Amino acid sequence: MSVPSGRRLVITLSCPDRTGIVAAITGRLAAIGASITEAAYHADVDAGWFVTRQVVDSASVPGGADVLRAVVGQVAAELEVPGGEPVRWHVRDTAESPRVVILVSRESHCLHDLLGRVWGGELDMDVRAVVGNHEVLRPIAAAHGVPFHHVPFPARAQDDEARTGRDAAFAQVAALVDEHDPAAIVLARFMQVLTPALCDRWAGRAINIHHSFLPSFMGARPYHQAHARGVKLVGATCHYVTADLDAGPIIEQDVIRIDHADTPEDMVRRGRDVEKLVLARGLRAHLEDRVQVHAGRTVVFR
Amino acid sequence: MSVPSGRRLVITLSCPDRTGIVAAITGRLAAIGASITEAAYHADVDAGWFVTRQVVDSASVPGGADVLRAVVGQVAAELEVPGGEPVRWHVRDTAESPRVVILVSRESHCLHDLLGRVWGGELDMDVRAVVGNHEVLRPIAAAHGVPFHHVPFPARAQDDEARTGRDAAFAQVAALVDEHDPAAIVLARFMQVLTPALCDRWAGRAINIHHSFLPSFMGARPYHQAHARGVKLVGATCHYVTADLDAGPIIEQDVIRIDHADTPEDMVRRGRDVEKLVLARGLRAHLEDRVQVHAGRTVVFR
Amino acid sequence: MSVPSGRRLVITLSCPDRTGIVAAITGRLAAIGASITEAAYHADVDAGWFVTRQVVDSASVPGGADVLRAVVGQVAAELEVPGGEPVRWHVRDTAESPRVVILVSRESHCLHDLLGRVWGGELDMDVRAVVGNHEVLRPIAAAHGVPFHHVPFPARAQDDEARTGRDAAFAQVAALVDEHDPAAIVLARFMQVLTPALCDRWAGRAINIHHSFLPSFMGARPYHQAHARGVKLVGATCHYVTADLDAGPIIEQDVIRIDHADTPEDMVRRGRDVEKLVLARGLRAHLEDRVQVHAGRTVVFR
Amino acid sequence: MSVPSGRRLVITLSCPDRTGIVAAITGRLAAIGASITEAAYHADVDAGWFVTRQVVDSASVPGGADVLRAVVGQVAAELEVPGGEPVRWHVRDTAESPRVVILVSRESHCLHDLLGRVWGGELDMDVRAVVGNHEVLRPIAAAHGVPFHHVPFPARAQDDEARTGRDAAFAQVAALVDEHDPAAIVLARFMQVLTPALCDRWAGRAINIHHSFLPSFMGARPYHQAHARGVKLVGATCHYVTADLDAGPIIEQDVIRIDHADTPEDMVRRGRDVEKLVLARGLRAHLEDRVQVHAGRTVVFR
Repeated sequence: MSVPSGRRLVITLSCPDRTGIVAAITGRLAAIGASITEAAYHADVDAGWFVTRQVVDSASVPGGADVLRAVVGQVAAELEVPGGEPVRWHVRDTAESPRVVILVSRESHCLHDLLGRVWGGELDMDVRAVVGNHEVLRPIAAAHGVPFHHVPFPARAQDDEARTGRDAAFAQVAALVDEHDPAAIVLARFMQVLTPALCDRWAGRAINIHHSFLPSFMGARPYHQAHARGVKLVGATCHYVTADLDAGPIIEQDVIRIDHADTPEDMVRRGRDVEKLVLARGLRAHLEDRVQVHAGRTVVFR
Repeated sequence: MSVPSGRRLVITLSCPDRTGIVAAITGRLAAIGASITEAAYHADVDAGWFVTRQVVDSASVPGGADVLRAVVGQVAAELEVPGGEPVRWHVRDTAESPRVVILVSRESHCLHDLLGRVWGGELDMDVRAVVGNHEVLRPIAAAHGVPFHHVPFPARAQDDEARTGRDAAFAQVAALVDEHDPAAIVLARFMQVLTPALCDRWAGRAINIHHSFLPSFMGARPYHQAHARGVKLVGATCHYVTADLDAGPIIEQDVIRIDHADTPEDMVRRGRDVEKLVLARGLRAHLEDRVQVHAGRTVVFR
Repeated sequence: MSVPSGRRLVITLSCPDRTGIVAAITGRLAAIGASITEAAYHADVDAGWFVTRQVVDSASVPGGADVLRAVVGQVAAELEVPGGEPVRWHVRDTAESPRVVILVSRESHCLHDLLGRVWGGELDMDVRAVVGNHEVLRPIAAAHGVPFHHVPFPARAQDDEARTGRDAAFAQVAALVDEHDPAAIVLARFMQVLTPALCDRWAGRAINIHHSFLPSFMGARPYHQAHARGVKLVGATCHYVTADLDAGPIIEQDVIRIDHADTPEDMVRRGRDVEKLVLARGLRAHLEDRVQVHAGRTVVFR
Repeated sequence: MSVPSGRRLVITLSCPDRTGIVAAITGRLAAIGASITEAAYHADVDAGWFVTRQVVDSASVPGGADVLRAVVGQVAAELEVPGGEPVRWHVRDTAESPRVVILVSRESHCLHDLLGRVWGGELDMDVRAVVGNHEVLRPIAAAHGVPFHHVPFPARAQDDEARTGRDAAFAQVAALVDEHDPAAIVLARFMQVLTPALCDRWAGRAINIHHSFLPSFMGARPYHQAHARGVKLVGATCHYVTADLDAGPIIEQDVIRIDHADTPEDMVRRGRDVEKLVLARGLRAHLEDRVQVHAGRTVVFR
């Protein structure tokens, strides 16, 4: 995974598969003298769907992103299949850091990790706000100079009053998020289930870290479930949020080894290390336009 | 994990937990001059259950296993709790290789791997027979000088005739297995579901390799399930067989990384490597008396 | 690895190996009613050296650490072998958090990670000071309420003046460290080579993180060495500092996979994740008295 | 890593890097209607060197490999840079299994593993012969119907007689190998150092498995070196053989975790698992034309 050392233009494009797509794209890029520094392709043969990501050295395209958008747009138009799924494409200029909002609850490790990476200059993102349903993580955001907003949520209950309170809280969260039009809304152990409406509005941008190796141990207290089952590995899953809880497209996963001597509390503590790594890797891939979703599954270019 | 370089006596003991158990055992062993070469302990605080494995240098106990059995039996009697779960203990002499029967179907990789380990002298077991519901793996057994028995099974069907045929086939398998009174019955990708009666009879001795990271993807075609879900790791699970399919106590698990470019067929191929390793590691632990089961979960001493 | 959920007394003892040591220790502990919650043993057969760690529930020893010290001291005296290597033992009360001083340079990731773990309550240590040879990490320490001391070091040079400046700087560092009599002095990417005198004074307490899988790529710029050699994995090593640079006893190591597409800069960035994990795991093991050194190698009890 | 499910034509090409190479290649392929099923690119910016691998569905090129060779050869000619390093390219038809000769000594695990993979149909190669400097592995080759040739080597000594005997033995090995013109000569724990002349003759085809994570522990008895150093991981390295021993371009590496309880003999046993996996993965990559070497380092396309 190469870190762009200079300014780059990142092209993503996906379309119905057929012969000659790469030639069409690269031919057009060569024609304008664009210098490609990274290129990745994937064709899902079963789905008949083609996906690519190309990184162009900005210096080789004097007109910049707009010129490139015109070129790629033209190719995309030619790749449309009448009656087929529409071509999707995007060109991003790395000169601007992607905007991010982070949602948290009481667990600090993922927030510490993400903000530490920004501080150290190893993760290029502009964290505009942290929104917490508890006050406890405010000092962390403050130490990094990021605005923190506390939006209290009612205790989980099934009555109408609780539901109303929850909807109101989510409305407040949504307003705090949407004013930044972020490239990613990160649920860094947020512990609240997004409403279907928000899942929809933030589709492909809301990223969750679940503290199990999905689809094992969906739902609450996965480490306790893992302990009860006696598994020998526990893991974490970074995925896009969808209305179907814990079933969104998976971006990244990893596991660590445990054994019989580990209590559920040990697993919770040790699992934090894999949670924060998996979230950081998944988020980086998303922000660098390495992830594309088709038919509920992700292509994640290295 | 230490390989006994000479003859050893292996003690396993589990009992209700209380203060002074280790002192009681090691005091008695010290009294007869037994030289302990490996020792491991575990107390499951929630379950109030204590587990230990001790390895004694055979040369330090002139009377051998019988003398040690008398000593350990006496300690065990003292550790009994009236009305409590009975103490379990065992003493094994490593002079005799444990007997093993392997059940197979059409997939060759686990059988090749296990017999190759025996050939190379790295896994101490006496494979008495291979039983297959297809003929195809007979040459592998033959090349290693192990008797191969073909027991055809009817195609999976729900009617009475199929069920009767299946029961008859299992009766034949059981007879071929039981004549060896094996320490382990290994389902090396056997693909047939043991009858509840056999699960019961072979409890704690029948060991299966499931080609997924359980409890993910129970049941049939786990790699295809994994592909459909878009997971980023696939794994394998070695577990004791119980009547509740794919829910037996887990001995060992591991995973490998896959990505979007892997088809289900790629996963099948790549998964074989983790299947054979996980089975070999789980079986070795079992044969070396490193595994003890309590309340549906295993303690696996390194 | 079990986190003590209540107050504990941690016993470590190592001595020349012989029959009956465990019985002697556990017999004495049982006699005073001490309840053992964790126990680990290792005998290095070649070296004839025995090592143990026992964790006792503080509530089961009314007299506390002093009573336990008297008991263990008596056993230790009996285990002495005339003319042999002296018995080493220690009893620590977990009621008091171990004191730690962290030495840093310009790289922030390890410091962020360690202080984040303290903030989140997952690593029990009392960080008394951070000492940096650059100012740049002061804000991180400040955000965590930890005193930061800047001790400038002269640029690396071989002349007498530079050597004198370096010695003076180290004297200042030593004073800042020693006033806290810390259980660990952590070189969190400190980048300065300790003087032999300090290596000696802090033997068994100074812990370094080296950014390679030692003994590969000793010395400077290991990621660049790794890139030049074309290895497929890079790693990190947490070790005790000795006068023989990069050759101290290894506490913990791990690796991550890289490939041909990774530039040295990519490796530096990706390597940080394994550096911070390996340092945190190694330091935790040290602070929990899980590490004992004999003949230049460590025993690290899980 | 996708297994070609049908007949494929595999193109590899490397050349001095410049803008438009991909367009040139894919444009020409599109022009003849070639359907690309896999494509990978890498540009080594520092070295100014471009590498690609393209897999074409054979059915889409009616003229077959010869037609494709004409097309690729023409592109290659256009990519030549006067005075620069020559373009290298190759087109292989997967209809023919690559020929392989395996050199062995006394250790059986790698040979068992490789032949087991061929038996199970998971590794597409035609093993023409096994050559051993001991007789002991003959039965394994025989069981798989592969000719085994015993070529005794003199004991390692420095006198002229030993050297002459060794040269004669190698001449015999070379003759047995070269008659098959193999795509790979696999040193499966062969334990004899190839002569410089053979290293040269088999450059890019002779593949060794070294039982350490190179460059750690070069030379003899790496597990004993690893034990003495007290490392926490041991590994294996699959590399091309060059005259500079253990310094050839690395194809694949992996490690496993060990601890203080592992004796050198334990490491030898446990290391076998990683040796055989690493060799199998490295060899597969080589046989599928995924590996290209430039400036002493490999590009290994997934």
